[in-house]
Amino acid sequence: MPTFHQKLASSWRKNDSLLCVGIDPDHKRLPKHLFECDKPYFEFGKAIVDATAAYVCAFKPQAAHFAAAAREDELALLIAYVKEHYPDLQVILDAKRGDVGSTAKLYAKEAFERYNADAVTVSPYLGKDSLEPYFEYSERGIIVLCRTSNPGSDWLQNSGDQTTPIYLKIAKQVNEWDSHGQCMLVTGATYPEELARVREVVGAMPLLVPGVGAQGGSVQEVLHHGQDAQGEGLVISSSRAILFADSGVGFGEAAAAAARSTMEEINKYR
Amino acid sequence: MPTFHQKLASSWRKNDSLLCVGIDPDHKRLPKHLFECDKPYFEFGKAIVDATAAYVCAFKPQAAHFAAAAREDELALLIAYVKEHYPDLQVILDAKRGDVGSTAKLYAKEAFERYNADAVTVSPYLGKDSLEPYFEYSERGIIVLCRTSNPGSDWLQNSGDQTTPIYLKIAKQVNEWDSHGQCMLVTGATYPEELARVREVVGAMPLLVPGVGAQGGSVQEVLHHGQDAQGEGLVISSSRAILFADSGVGFGEAAAAAARSTMEEINKYR
Repeated sequence: MPTFHQKLASSWRKNDSLLCVGIDPDHKRLPKHLFECDKPYFEFGKAIVDATAAYVCAFKPQAAHFAAAAREDELALLIAYVKEHYPDLQVILDAKRGDVGSTAKLYAKEAFERYNADAVTVSPYLGKDSLEPYFEYSERGIIVLCRTSNPGSDWLQNSGDQTTPIYLKIAKQVNEWDSHGQCMLVTGATYPEELARVREVVGAMPLLVPGVGAQGGSVQEVLHHGQDAQGEGLVISSSRAILFADSGVGFGEAAAAAARSTMEEINKYR
Repeated sequence: MPTFHQKLASSWRKNDSLLCVGIDPDHKRLPKHLFECDKPYFEFGKAIVDATAAYVCAFKPQAAHFAAAAREDELALLIAYVKEHYPDLQVILDAKRGDVGSTAKLYAKEAFERYNADAVTVSPYLGKDSLEPYFEYSERGIIVLCRTSNPGSDWLQNSGDQTTPIYLKIAKQVNEWDSHGQCMLVTGATYPEELARVREVVGAMPLLVPGVGAQGGSVQEVLHHGQDAQGEGLVISSSRAILFADSGVGFGEAAAAAARSTMEEINKYR
Protein backbone atom coordinates (compact mmCIF):
# COMPACT_ATOMS: atom_id res chain seq x y z
CA MET A 1 0.00 0.00 0.00
CA PRO A 2 1.62 3.32 -1.03
CA THR A 3 1.87 6.08 1.59
CA PHE A 4 0.25 9.47 1.10
CA HIS A 5 3.64 10.95 0.26
CA GLN A 6 4.14 8.31 -2.44
CA LYS A 7 0.70 8.95 -3.90
CA LEU A 8 1.36 12.67 -3.92
CA ALA A 9 4.68 12.12 -5.73
CA SER A 10 2.79 10.16 -8.42
CA SER A 11 0.38 13.07 -8.75
CA TRP A 12 3.25 15.55 -9.22
CA ARG A 13 4.61 13.38 -12.02
CA LYS A 14 1.27 12.69 -13.68
CA ASN A 15 1.06 16.19 -15.21
CA ASP A 16 4.56 17.34 -14.27
CA SER A 17 2.84 19.93 -12.08
CA LEU A 18 3.08 21.19 -8.50
CA LEU A 19 -0.05 23.32 -8.90
CA CYS A 20 -3.16 22.82 -6.79
CA VAL A 21 -6.39 24.59 -7.66
CA GLY A 22 -8.26 25.75 -4.55
CA ILE A 23 -11.99 25.47 -5.07
CA ASP A 24 -13.55 28.36 -3.13
CA PRO A 25 -16.99 28.90 -4.64
CA ASP A 26 -17.64 32.42 -3.42
CA HIS A 27 -21.39 32.95 -3.82
CA LYS A 28 -21.01 36.55 -4.98
CA ARG A 29 -18.47 35.70 -7.67
CA LEU A 30 -19.98 32.57 -9.18
CA PRO A 31 -21.00 33.03 -12.83
CA LYS A 32 -24.66 34.07 -12.75
CA HIS A 33 -25.86 31.53 -15.31
CA LEU A 34 -24.95 28.67 -12.96
CA PHE A 35 -27.78 29.61 -10.62
CA GLU A 36 -30.18 28.25 -13.23
CA CYS A 37 -28.99 24.74 -12.19
CA ASP A 38 -30.08 22.87 -9.08
CA LYS A 39 -26.53 22.48 -7.82
CA PRO A 40 -24.55 25.57 -8.83
CA TYR A 41 -21.67 24.95 -6.41
CA PHE A 42 -21.15 21.43 -7.72
CA GLU A 43 -21.51 22.53 -11.36
CA PHE A 44 -19.00 25.31 -10.84
CA GLY A 45 -16.50 22.97 -9.16
CA LYS A 46 -16.98 20.26 -11.77
CA ALA A 47 -16.38 22.71 -14.62
CA ILE A 48 -13.23 24.04 -12.94
CA VAL A 49 -11.98 20.49 -12.32
CA ASP A 50 -12.57 19.41 -15.93
CA ALA A 51 -10.96 22.58 -17.28
CA THR A 52 -7.82 22.45 -15.13
CA ALA A 53 -7.21 18.74 -14.40
CA ALA A 54 -4.44 18.51 -17.02
CA TYR A 55 -2.37 21.19 -15.25
CA VAL A 56 -2.53 20.23 -11.57
CA CYS A 57 -1.46 17.65 -9.01
CA ALA A 58 -4.35 18.35 -6.61
CA PHE A 59 -7.64 20.09 -5.96
CA LYS A 60 -8.37 21.77 -2.64
CA PRO A 61 -12.08 22.41 -2.03
CA GLN A 62 -12.57 24.81 0.89
CA ALA A 63 -15.23 23.70 3.40
CA ALA A 64 -16.54 27.09 4.62
CA HIS A 65 -17.68 28.12 1.17
CA PHE A 66 -20.01 25.13 1.02
CA ALA A 67 -21.00 25.24 4.71
CA ALA A 68 -22.01 28.91 4.72
CA ALA A 69 -24.49 28.12 1.95
CA ALA A 70 -25.68 24.78 3.45
CA ARG A 71 -24.28 22.95 0.41
CA GLU A 72 -22.29 20.12 1.98
CA ASP A 73 -24.06 17.68 -0.34
CA GLU A 74 -22.54 19.49 -3.34
CA LEU A 75 -19.08 19.32 -1.74
CA ALA A 76 -19.51 15.55 -1.35
CA LEU A 77 -20.62 15.21 -4.98
CA LEU A 78 -17.67 17.28 -6.18
CA ILE A 79 -15.10 15.18 -4.33
CA ALA A 80 -16.73 11.96 -5.57
CA TYR A 81 -16.56 13.37 -9.11
CA VAL A 82 -12.82 14.07 -8.86
CA LYS A 83 -12.10 10.66 -7.34
CA GLU A 84 -14.03 8.93 -10.11
CA HIS A 85 -12.73 10.88 -13.11
CA TYR A 86 -9.24 11.90 -11.97
CA PRO A 87 -8.11 9.16 -9.57
CA ASP A 88 -4.44 10.08 -10.05
CA LEU A 89 -4.94 13.56 -8.56
CA GLN A 90 -5.17 14.33 -4.84
CA VAL A 91 -8.17 15.90 -3.15
CA ILE A 92 -7.32 18.06 -0.15
CA LEU A 93 -10.26 19.08 2.03
CA ASP A 94 -9.41 22.51 3.39
CA ALA A 95 -11.18 22.46 6.74
CA LYS A 96 -8.55 23.53 9.33
CA ARG A 97 -10.35 21.66 12.11
CA GLY A 98 -8.80 21.32 15.55
CA ASP A 99 -10.46 19.80 18.61
CA VAL A 100 -9.86 17.37 21.50
CA GLY A 101 -9.28 13.71 20.61
CA SER A 102 -12.82 12.39 21.01
CA THR A 103 -14.16 15.16 18.76
CA ALA A 104 -11.21 15.08 16.34
CA LYS A 105 -12.20 11.47 15.69
CA LEU A 106 -15.46 12.76 14.23
CA TYR A 107 -13.76 15.47 12.18
CA ALA A 108 -11.46 12.77 10.77
CA LYS A 109 -14.54 10.72 9.96
CA GLU A 110 -16.10 13.77 8.26
CA ALA A 111 -13.01 14.31 6.08
CA PHE A 112 -12.03 10.74 5.26
CA GLU A 113 -15.30 8.81 5.33
CA ARG A 114 -18.10 11.25 4.64
CA TYR A 115 -16.15 13.20 2.00
CA ASN A 116 -13.49 10.58 1.18
CA ALA A 117 -10.80 13.26 0.83
CA ASP A 118 -7.19 12.15 0.33
CA ALA A 119 -5.93 14.71 2.84
CA VAL A 120 -7.28 17.36 5.21
CA THR A 121 -5.89 20.57 6.69
CA VAL A 122 -5.81 20.71 10.52
CA SER A 123 -4.78 23.10 13.29
CA PRO A 124 -1.90 22.18 15.64
CA TYR A 125 -3.19 24.33 18.52
CA LEU A 126 -4.50 21.44 20.65
CA GLY A 127 -1.44 19.24 20.34
CA LYS A 128 -0.73 15.65 19.39
CA ASP A 129 -3.77 13.93 20.91
CA SER A 130 -5.93 16.18 18.74
CA LEU A 131 -4.21 14.80 15.61
CA GLU A 132 -4.06 11.12 16.52
CA PRO A 133 -7.46 10.20 15.06
CA TYR A 134 -6.27 11.42 11.65
CA PHE A 135 -3.12 9.28 11.85
CA GLU A 136 -5.35 6.21 12.20
CA TYR A 137 -6.31 6.62 8.54
CA SER A 138 -2.80 5.54 7.68
CA GLU A 139 -2.89 6.12 3.92
CA ARG A 140 -4.41 9.62 4.14
CA GLY A 141 -2.66 12.98 4.39
CA ILE A 142 -2.62 15.32 7.40
CA ILE A 143 -1.72 18.90 6.52
CA VAL A 144 -0.86 20.91 9.62
CA LEU A 145 -1.04 24.71 9.78
CA CYS A 146 2.46 26.07 10.35
CA ARG A 147 3.09 29.56 8.92
CA THR A 148 -0.11 30.83 7.33
CA SER A 149 -0.17 33.35 4.51
CA ASN A 150 -2.30 36.07 6.17
CA PRO A 151 -0.90 39.31 7.61
CA GLY A 152 -2.15 38.73 11.18
CA SER A 153 -0.43 35.36 11.57
CA ASP A 154 2.87 36.85 12.68
CA TRP A 155 1.68 37.78 16.14
CA LEU A 156 1.32 34.21 17.36
CA GLN A 157 3.11 31.99 14.84
CA ASN A 158 6.31 33.99 14.91
CA SER A 159 6.35 34.49 18.67
CA GLY A 160 8.51 32.75 21.23
CA ASP A 161 12.24 32.19 21.26
CA GLN A 162 13.49 33.46 17.86
CA THR A 163 15.83 30.48 17.43
CA THR A 164 12.71 28.33 17.37
CA PRO A 165 9.60 30.48 16.98
CA ILE A 166 6.23 28.72 17.28
CA TYR A 167 5.91 27.91 13.55
CA LEU A 168 9.33 26.25 13.54
CA LYS A 169 8.61 24.35 16.73
CA ILE A 170 5.52 22.97 14.98
CA ALA A 171 7.48 22.07 11.85
CA LYS A 172 10.04 20.11 13.88
CA GLN A 173 7.44 18.37 15.96
CA VAL A 174 5.23 17.34 13.04
CA ASN A 175 8.30 15.98 11.28
CA GLU A 176 8.95 13.77 14.33
CA TRP A 177 5.33 12.64 14.61
CA ASP A 178 5.15 11.60 10.96
CA SER A 179 6.23 7.97 10.99
CA HIS A 180 4.21 6.87 7.97
CA GLY A 181 4.59 9.48 5.21
CA GLN A 182 1.31 11.24 6.00
CA CYS A 183 2.14 14.81 7.00
CA MET A 184 2.51 18.10 5.19
CA LEU A 185 2.79 21.66 6.54
CA VAL A 186 0.98 24.81 5.44
CA THR A 187 3.58 27.51 4.78
CA GLY A 188 2.42 30.66 3.04
CA ALA A 189 4.11 32.02 -0.07
CA THR A 190 3.93 35.46 1.51
CA TYR A 191 6.74 34.56 3.97
CA PRO A 192 9.43 33.02 1.72
CA GLU A 193 12.28 33.24 4.22
CA GLU A 194 10.29 31.37 6.79
CA LEU A 195 9.40 28.80 4.14
CA ALA A 196 13.16 28.31 3.76
CA ARG A 197 13.60 27.78 7.51
CA VAL A 198 10.78 25.22 7.50
CA ARG A 199 12.32 23.37 4.53
CA GLU A 200 15.59 23.24 6.42
CA VAL A 201 14.11 21.41 9.39
CA VAL A 202 11.68 19.03 7.65
CA GLY A 203 13.89 17.46 4.98
CA ALA A 204 11.76 16.27 2.09
CA MET A 205 8.35 16.64 3.77
CA PRO A 206 5.95 18.17 1.23
CA LEU A 207 4.65 21.67 1.91
CA LEU A 208 1.26 23.12 0.99
CA VAL A 209 1.85 26.69 -0.12
CA PRO A 210 -1.09 29.08 -0.43
CA GLY A 211 -0.62 32.77 -1.10
CA VAL A 212 0.50 32.99 -4.72
CA GLY A 213 -1.99 34.59 -7.12
CA ALA A 214 -4.47 36.97 -5.45
CA GLN A 215 -2.45 37.16 -2.19
CA GLY A 216 0.70 38.30 -3.99
CA GLY A 217 3.34 35.69 -3.01
CA SER A 218 6.17 35.22 -5.55
CA VAL A 219 6.31 31.89 -7.39
CA GLN A 220 10.03 32.32 -7.98
CA GLU A 221 10.76 32.84 -4.27
CA VAL A 222 8.58 29.88 -3.30
CA LEU A 223 10.47 27.58 -5.65
CA HIS A 224 13.83 29.01 -4.67
CA HIS A 225 13.24 28.43 -0.95
CA GLY A 226 10.80 25.56 -0.91
CA GLN A 227 11.49 22.85 -3.48
CA ASP A 228 13.16 19.62 -2.41
CA ALA A 229 16.27 18.04 -3.98
CA GLN A 230 14.14 16.52 -6.78
CA GLY A 231 12.52 19.84 -7.75
CA GLU A 232 9.33 18.68 -6.05
CA GLY A 233 8.11 18.80 -2.44
CA LEU A 234 5.57 21.58 -2.99
CA VAL A 235 1.85 21.78 -3.55
CA ILE A 236 1.33 25.38 -4.63
CA SER A 237 -2.25 26.46 -4.26
CA SER A 238 -4.03 29.19 -6.17
CA SER A 239 -7.76 29.82 -5.92
CA ARG A 240 -9.28 33.15 -6.89
CA ALA A 241 -6.80 34.00 -9.67
CA ILE A 242 -7.82 30.79 -11.45
CA LEU A 243 -11.48 30.38 -10.46
CA PHE A 244 -12.53 33.89 -11.35
CA ALA A 245 -10.22 34.62 -14.28
CA ASP A 246 -13.46 35.25 -16.17
CA SER A 247 -16.80 35.91 -14.50
CA GLY A 248 -19.13 34.82 -17.31
CA VAL A 249 -19.84 31.79 -19.48
CA GLY A 250 -16.16 31.59 -20.45
CA PHE A 251 -15.00 30.92 -16.88
CA GLY A 252 -13.87 27.34 -17.64
CA GLU A 253 -11.62 28.29 -20.54
CA ALA A 254 -10.22 31.24 -18.64
CA ALA A 255 -9.50 28.99 -15.63
CA ALA A 256 -7.74 26.48 -17.89
CA ALA A 257 -5.54 29.21 -19.35
CA ALA A 258 -4.74 30.66 -15.92
CA ALA A 259 -3.94 27.21 -14.49
CA ARG A 260 -1.74 26.35 -17.44
CA SER A 261 0.24 29.57 -17.24
CA THR A 262 0.64 29.24 -13.45
CA MET A 263 1.91 25.68 -13.90
CA GLU A 264 4.35 26.86 -16.56
CA GLU A 265 5.58 29.69 -14.37
CA ILE A 266 6.17 27.25 -11.53
CA ASN A 267 8.04 24.84 -13.81
CA LYS A 268 10.37 27.62 -15.01
CA TYR A 269 11.98 27.68 -11.57
CA ARG A 270 12.26 23.95 -10.85
CA MET B 1 -29.02 46.78 22.11
CA PRO B 2 -27.46 44.64 24.88
CA THR B 3 -23.98 43.24 24.31
CA PHE B 4 -23.28 39.51 24.29
CA HIS B 5 -21.80 39.79 27.79
CA GLN B 6 -24.99 41.46 29.02
CA LYS B 7 -27.17 38.79 27.44
CA LEU B 8 -25.03 36.08 28.99
CA ALA B 9 -25.36 37.72 32.42
CA SER B 10 -29.16 37.61 32.03
CA SER B 11 -28.90 33.92 31.17
CA TRP B 12 -26.85 33.23 34.33
CA ARG B 13 -29.54 34.93 36.41
CA LYS B 14 -32.51 33.35 34.64
CA ASN B 15 -31.98 29.96 36.35
CA ASP B 16 -29.26 31.05 38.79
CA SER B 17 -26.98 28.68 36.91
CA LEU B 18 -23.50 28.74 35.34
CA LEU B 19 -23.99 25.31 33.79
CA CYS B 20 -23.88 24.71 30.03
CA VAL B 21 -24.94 21.39 28.56
CA GLY B 22 -22.74 20.34 25.66
CA ILE B 23 -24.78 18.53 23.04
CA ASP B 24 -22.46 15.93 21.51
CA PRO B 25 -24.70 13.30 19.92
CA ASP B 26 -22.26 10.43 19.70
CA HIS B 27 -23.82 7.98 17.24
CA LYS B 28 -22.72 4.91 19.20
CA ARG B 29 -24.18 6.15 22.49
CA LEU B 30 -27.52 7.54 21.34
CA PRO B 31 -30.47 5.65 22.82
CA LYS B 32 -31.37 2.95 20.30
CA HIS B 33 -35.09 3.72 20.16
CA LEU B 34 -34.37 7.17 18.68
CA PHE B 35 -33.26 5.59 15.41
CA GLU B 36 -36.89 4.74 14.73
CA CYS B 37 -37.42 8.50 14.07
CA ASP B 38 -36.44 10.33 10.91
CA LYS B 39 -34.24 12.81 12.75
CA PRO B 40 -32.65 11.02 15.70
CA TYR B 41 -29.95 13.67 16.32
CA PHE B 42 -32.53 16.43 16.51
CA GLU B 43 -34.90 14.35 18.66
CA PHE B 44 -32.08 13.52 21.05
CA GLY B 45 -30.96 17.14 21.32
CA LYS B 46 -34.54 18.40 21.75
CA ALA B 47 -35.24 15.91 24.55
CA ILE B 48 -32.00 16.91 26.31
CA VAL B 49 -32.83 20.60 25.92
CA ASP B 50 -36.36 20.20 27.29
CA ALA B 51 -35.14 18.05 30.19
CA THR B 52 -32.31 20.34 31.28
CA ALA B 53 -33.38 23.89 30.29
CA ALA B 54 -34.39 24.76 33.87
CA TYR B 55 -30.85 24.13 35.14
CA VAL B 56 -28.60 25.83 32.61
CA CYS B 57 -27.51 29.18 31.20
CA ALA B 58 -26.51 27.79 27.79
CA PHE B 59 -26.44 24.89 25.37
CA LYS B 60 -23.35 24.04 23.35
CA PRO B 61 -24.03 21.82 20.33
CA GLN B 62 -20.79 20.42 18.90
CA ALA B 63 -20.50 20.66 15.11
CA ALA B 64 -18.37 17.56 14.35
CA HIS B 65 -20.94 15.18 15.78
CA PHE B 66 -23.50 16.41 13.27
CA ALA B 67 -21.03 16.83 10.38
CA ALA B 68 -19.56 13.31 10.62
CA ALA B 69 -23.07 11.96 10.13
CA ALA B 70 -24.11 14.49 7.43
CA ARG B 71 -26.81 15.83 9.76
CA GLU B 72 -26.25 19.58 9.57
CA ASP B 73 -29.97 20.04 8.91
CA GLU B 74 -30.72 18.52 12.32
CA LEU B 75 -28.21 20.84 13.97
CA ALA B 76 -29.98 23.81 12.37
CA LEU B 77 -33.38 22.54 13.56
CA LEU B 78 -32.06 22.01 17.08
CA ILE B 79 -30.67 25.54 17.39
CA ALA B 80 -33.90 26.99 15.98
CA TYR B 81 -35.82 24.96 18.56
CA VAL B 82 -33.78 26.36 21.46
CA LYS B 83 -34.07 29.93 20.17
CA GLU B 84 -37.85 29.58 19.85
CA HIS B 85 -38.60 27.84 23.15
CA TYR B 86 -35.82 29.11 25.42
CA PRO B 87 -34.92 32.57 24.10
CA ASP B 88 -33.36 33.54 27.45
CA LEU B 89 -30.64 30.88 27.15
CA GLN B 90 -27.50 31.16 25.02
CA VAL B 91 -26.63 28.81 22.16
CA ILE B 92 -22.90 28.31 21.65
CA LEU B 93 -21.91 26.58 18.42
CA ASP B 94 -18.79 24.58 19.23
CA ALA B 95 -16.98 24.66 15.89
CA LYS B 96 -13.40 25.82 16.68
CA ARG B 97 -12.93 27.19 13.16
CA GLY B 98 -9.86 29.21 12.23
CA ASP B 99 -8.98 30.48 8.76
CA VAL B 100 -7.76 33.55 6.86
CA GLY B 101 -10.07 36.57 6.80
CA SER B 102 -11.86 35.97 3.51
CA THR B 103 -12.69 32.41 4.57
CA ALA B 104 -13.40 33.31 8.21
CA LYS B 105 -16.13 35.56 6.85
CA LEU B 106 -17.89 32.45 5.57
CA TYR B 107 -17.41 30.54 8.81
CA ALA B 108 -18.92 33.52 10.65
CA LYS B 109 -21.81 33.40 8.21
CA GLU B 110 -22.20 29.66 8.85
CA ALA B 111 -22.34 30.18 12.63
CA PHE B 112 -24.38 33.36 12.86
CA GLU B 113 -26.62 33.30 9.78
CA ARG B 114 -27.05 29.69 8.74
CA TYR B 115 -27.28 28.37 12.33
CA ASN B 116 -28.15 31.63 14.10
CA ALA B 117 -25.99 30.71 17.11
CA ASP B 118 -25.49 33.33 19.83
CA ALA B 119 -21.76 32.56 20.02
CA VAL B 120 -19.16 30.37 18.34
CA THR B 121 -15.83 28.87 19.43
CA VAL B 122 -12.82 29.84 17.28
CA SER B 123 -9.08 29.18 17.12
CA PRO B 124 -6.60 32.05 17.68
CA TYR B 125 -3.83 30.44 15.61
CA LEU B 126 -4.20 32.72 12.56
CA GLY B 127 -4.33 35.99 14.48
CA LYS B 128 -6.57 39.00 14.56
CA ASP B 129 -7.52 39.29 10.89
CA SER B 130 -8.91 35.76 11.12
CA LEU B 131 -11.29 36.89 13.90
CA GLU B 132 -12.41 40.22 12.46
CA PRO B 133 -15.36 38.83 10.45
CA TYR B 134 -16.85 37.51 13.70
CA PHE B 135 -16.53 40.91 15.38
CA GLU B 136 -18.72 42.37 12.66
CA TYR B 137 -21.69 40.53 14.17
CA SER B 138 -21.48 42.96 17.05
CA GLU B 139 -24.09 41.42 19.33
CA ARG B 140 -22.75 37.85 19.03
CA GLY B 141 -20.16 36.06 21.14
CA ILE B 142 -16.65 35.00 20.06
CA ILE B 143 -15.14 32.30 22.25
CA VAL B 144 -11.42 31.96 21.64
CA LEU B 145 -9.44 28.81 22.47
CA CYS B 146 -6.91 29.65 25.18
CA ARG B 147 -5.96 26.73 27.45
CA THR B 148 -7.81 23.63 26.30
CA SER B 149 -8.71 20.74 28.62
CA ASN B 150 -6.93 17.90 26.77
CA PRO B 151 -3.60 16.36 27.89
CA GLY B 152 -1.69 17.19 24.68
CA SER B 153 -2.42 20.92 24.83
CA ASP B 154 0.51 21.69 27.11
CA TRP B 155 3.14 21.29 24.43
CA LEU B 156 2.11 24.37 22.46
CA GLN B 157 -0.21 26.39 24.68
CA ASN B 158 2.12 26.40 27.64
CA SER B 159 5.27 27.03 25.60
CA GLY B 160 7.19 30.28 25.25
CA ASP B 161 8.44 32.61 27.94
CA GLN B 162 7.00 31.29 31.23
CA THR B 163 6.11 34.78 32.44
CA THR B 164 3.71 34.93 29.50
CA PRO B 165 3.24 31.48 27.96
CA ILE B 166 1.23 31.30 24.73
CA TYR B 167 -2.16 30.78 26.43
CA LEU B 168 -1.63 33.87 28.60
CA LYS B 169 -0.45 35.93 25.63
CA ILE B 170 -3.72 35.01 23.94
CA ALA B 171 -5.77 35.87 27.01
CA LYS B 172 -4.19 39.33 27.24
CA GLN B 173 -4.54 40.00 23.55
CA VAL B 174 -8.19 38.91 23.28
CA ASN B 175 -8.98 41.09 26.28
CA GLU B 176 -7.51 44.07 24.37
CA TRP B 177 -9.32 43.23 21.15
CA ASP B 178 -12.70 42.98 22.85
CA SER B 179 -14.09 46.49 22.64
CA HIS B 180 -17.77 45.54 22.58
CA GLY B 181 -18.37 42.84 25.20
CA GLN B 182 -18.19 39.95 22.73
CA CYS B 183 -15.30 37.73 23.76
CA MET B 184 -14.85 34.76 26.02
CA LEU B 185 -11.92 32.36 26.43
CA VAL B 186 -11.88 28.57 26.56
CA THR B 187 -9.96 27.51 29.67
CA GLY B 188 -10.16 23.85 30.70
CA ALA B 189 -11.17 22.75 34.18
CA THR B 190 -8.28 20.30 34.08
CA TYR B 191 -5.75 23.14 34.53
CA PRO B 192 -7.18 25.14 37.48
CA GLU B 193 -4.00 27.09 38.23
CA GLU B 194 -3.80 28.32 34.68
CA LEU B 195 -7.48 29.24 34.85
CA ALA B 196 -6.50 31.44 37.82
CA ARG B 197 -3.74 33.12 35.79
CA VAL B 198 -6.19 33.78 32.95
CA ARG B 199 -8.77 35.24 35.35
CA GLU B 200 -6.05 37.54 36.71
CA VAL B 201 -5.33 39.11 33.32
CA VAL B 202 -8.84 39.33 31.84
CA GLY B 203 -10.77 41.01 34.65
CA ALA B 204 -14.45 40.10 34.38
CA MET B 205 -14.35 38.51 30.91
CA PRO B 206 -16.47 35.36 30.99
CA LEU B 207 -14.70 32.02 30.56
CA LEU B 208 -16.02 28.86 28.93
CA VAL B 209 -14.82 25.94 31.01
CA PRO B 210 -15.02 22.41 29.62
CA GLY B 211 -13.46 19.45 31.40
CA VAL B 212 -15.66 18.86 34.45
CA GLY B 213 -17.68 15.62 34.41
CA ALA B 214 -16.19 12.88 32.21
CA GLN B 215 -12.81 14.65 31.88
CA GLY B 216 -12.33 14.82 35.66
CA GLY B 217 -11.84 18.56 36.36
CA SER B 218 -12.90 19.68 39.86
CA VAL B 219 -15.93 21.98 40.12
CA GLN B 220 -14.68 23.36 43.42
CA GLU B 221 -11.29 24.31 41.93
CA VAL B 222 -12.93 25.90 38.89
CA LEU B 223 -15.12 28.08 41.06
CA HIS B 224 -12.31 28.89 43.44
CA HIS B 225 -10.00 30.07 40.66
CA GLY B 226 -12.40 31.20 37.98
CA GLN B 227 -15.45 33.06 39.28
CA ASP B 228 -15.61 36.83 39.04
CA ALA B 229 -16.36 39.26 41.88
CA GLN B 230 -20.12 38.65 41.46
CA GLY B 231 -19.82 34.84 41.71
CA GLU B 232 -20.42 34.66 37.96
CA GLY B 233 -18.07 34.93 34.97
CA LEU B 234 -18.10 31.23 34.11
CA VAL B 235 -19.92 29.01 31.65
CA ILE B 236 -19.12 25.50 32.89
CA SER B 237 -19.74 22.90 30.26
CA SER B 238 -20.52 19.25 30.78
CA SER B 239 -21.53 16.90 27.98
CA ARG B 240 -21.20 13.14 28.31
CA ALA B 241 -21.88 12.94 32.06
CA ILE B 242 -25.27 14.56 31.45
CA LEU B 243 -26.20 13.30 27.97
CA PHE B 244 -25.52 9.67 28.66
CA ALA B 245 -26.46 9.45 32.34
CA ASP B 246 -28.87 6.75 31.15
CA SER B 247 -28.62 4.96 27.82
CA GLY B 248 -32.23 3.89 27.38
CA VAL B 249 -35.72 5.42 27.26
CA GLY B 250 -35.09 7.18 30.58
CA PHE B 251 -32.24 9.31 29.20
CA GLY B 252 -34.17 12.59 29.51
CA GLU B 253 -35.02 12.16 33.18
CA ALA B 254 -31.49 11.00 33.94
CA ALA B 255 -30.05 14.02 32.12
CA ALA B 256 -32.33 16.35 34.09
CA ALA B 257 -31.18 14.83 37.38
CA ALA B 258 -27.51 15.00 36.37
CA ALA B 259 -27.84 18.63 35.18
CA ARG B 260 -29.65 19.63 38.36
CA SER B 261 -27.06 18.06 40.63
CA THR B 262 -24.18 19.57 38.62
CA MET B 263 -25.81 23.01 38.86
CA GLU B 264 -26.27 22.56 42.61
CA GLU B 265 -22.68 21.45 43.05
CA ILE B 266 -21.50 24.55 41.14
CA ASN B 267 -23.71 26.81 43.24
CA LYS B 268 -22.28 25.41 46.51
CA TYR B 269 -18.98 27.14 45.72
CA ARG B 270 -20.22 30.50 44.48
